[in-house]
Amino acid sequence: MTIDSIEEVSTREKLLIATADLIQMHGYRGSGLTAILKKAGIPKGSLYHHFPDGKDELVSEAIRHSGKMYLRQYAESMKTFDKVEDGLNDIIDYLKNRLLESDYARGCPISTVALEVSNTNDSIRNVCWEVYTRWEASFATYLEMKNIDNAEEKAKLLLEMIEGAFILSKAHKSVQHLELIKKAIPKILN
Amino acid sequence: MTIDSIEEVSTREKLLIATADLIQMHGYRGSGLTAILKKAGIPKGSLYHHFPDGKDELVSEAIRHSGKMYLRQYAESMKTFDKVEDGLNDIIDYLKNRLLESDYARGCPISTVALEVSNTNDSIRNVCWEVYTRWEASFATYLEMKNIDNAEEKAKLLLEMIEGAFILSKAHKSVQHLELIKKAIPKILN
Repeated sequence: MTIDSIEEVSTREKLLIATADLIQMHGYRGSGLTAILKKAGIPKGSLYHHFPDGKDELVSEAIRHSGKMYLRQYAESMKTFDKVEDGLNDIIDYLKNRLLESDYARGCPISTVALEVSNTNDSIRNVCWEVYTRWEASFATYLEMKNIDNAEEKAKLLLEMIEGAFILSKAHKSVQHLELIKKAIPKILN
Repeated sequence: MTIDSIEEVSTREKLLIATADLIQMHGYRGSGLTAILKKAGIPKGSLYHHFPDGKDELVSEAIRHSGKMYLRQYAESMKTFDKVEDGLNDIIDYLKNRLLESDYARGCPISTVALEVSNTNDSIRNVCWEVYTRWEASFATYLEMKNIDNAEEKAKLLLEMIEGAFILSKAHKSVQHLELIKKAIPKILN
C-alpha cells in the first residue's frame, strides 16, 4: 500500500466516523454536510471523490461502518467470557460506558436515523435493517454456541431491549434501563 | 361553554394532533411549522394565539397530549382483562395495529424526537422523560394491582421492550419484534 492509498483510506474513514458521530447525536436532518466536513477536517472536494452520490451514500456507509465496529466489540466480549450471561453483561457495560463517557450523546448510531427516515427514505431504512439483522445474527450465533434454545428469537429480544434502553437512557439521562437488562437476561435466556 | 370556547379547544386539539402525527413520522427537525399548520388546516395567527412560545411549546404539548391518549388506551386494556398477561397482550396488539394501519408510519409519538433532540434541547427532553415516566407508572400500577412483585422494574423492562420493538419494526417493516414481547411477558413477570 502506498502512502497515497493509506491517505485515501484515512480520509474515507474520517468521514465515516464524523458522520456516524453526528447522526447518532442529531439524526439525519440535523447532520448537515458542512458540519460533517468540519468535524472530519476534510475539504468538500474529497467528499464527492469518496462518496459520489453525496449525503445518502455517506450516511449509509457510516451506518454500516459503525455497525461493524459494534460487531467487533460484541465478538470481543463473547470470546472473553465463558458464561453467556457474563459475555452479554460485558456488552451492556460497553454500551453503558459509551453513554456515560459522552454524557448521553452516543448511544446507538442507527436508531435516530432509523426512526427519522424510515417512512421517507427506503434505501437508508434498508441499511438500518441490514445492520440490525447482523447484530441479531451475532447475538443468535453466540447463544447457539452456548446451547441456548430458540437463539434467534432470544437474540431479537435482547436487541429490542438494548435499543429501547438507549432511548429511555437518553431521555432520563440515567443508565438504569440498561442495568435492568442484566437482571432480565437470565429470564430471557431460560 | 360557549361556541367560541368549543372552537378554541378544537383548534388547539387539531394543532396538537397534527404535530404529534408529523413528529412521529419525521422527527422534530423534519416537521416544519408550515407543514403542521397545513395538516391541521389552521392559519398561522392561531398558532401563536394558542402556543405563544412557538414550535417548542407546540411540540412539548403535542408529546404530552399523545402521552395521555396512550395512557387512556392502556387503562382501557387493563380494565378489560382480568389476567395481567391478557391486558398487556391487548396493549401490544393496539400498538401493533397502529403500526400496520399506518404502514409503519405511526409508532411511538415520542421516541424520534427523544433521540433527535436529547443532546440539544433539554426542555423537550424533559417532556419526553415526563411522558415515559407516566407510562412506566401506569404499567407499574397495573402490575402492583395484579400482585406482581418488583412491579416498577418490570414496568421499565416492558416499556424498553416496546420502545425497542418500535424501532426494529419500522426498520424491518414487520411486527415480529412486537409479537415477541408477548412471548417474553410471562418470563418477565415471573
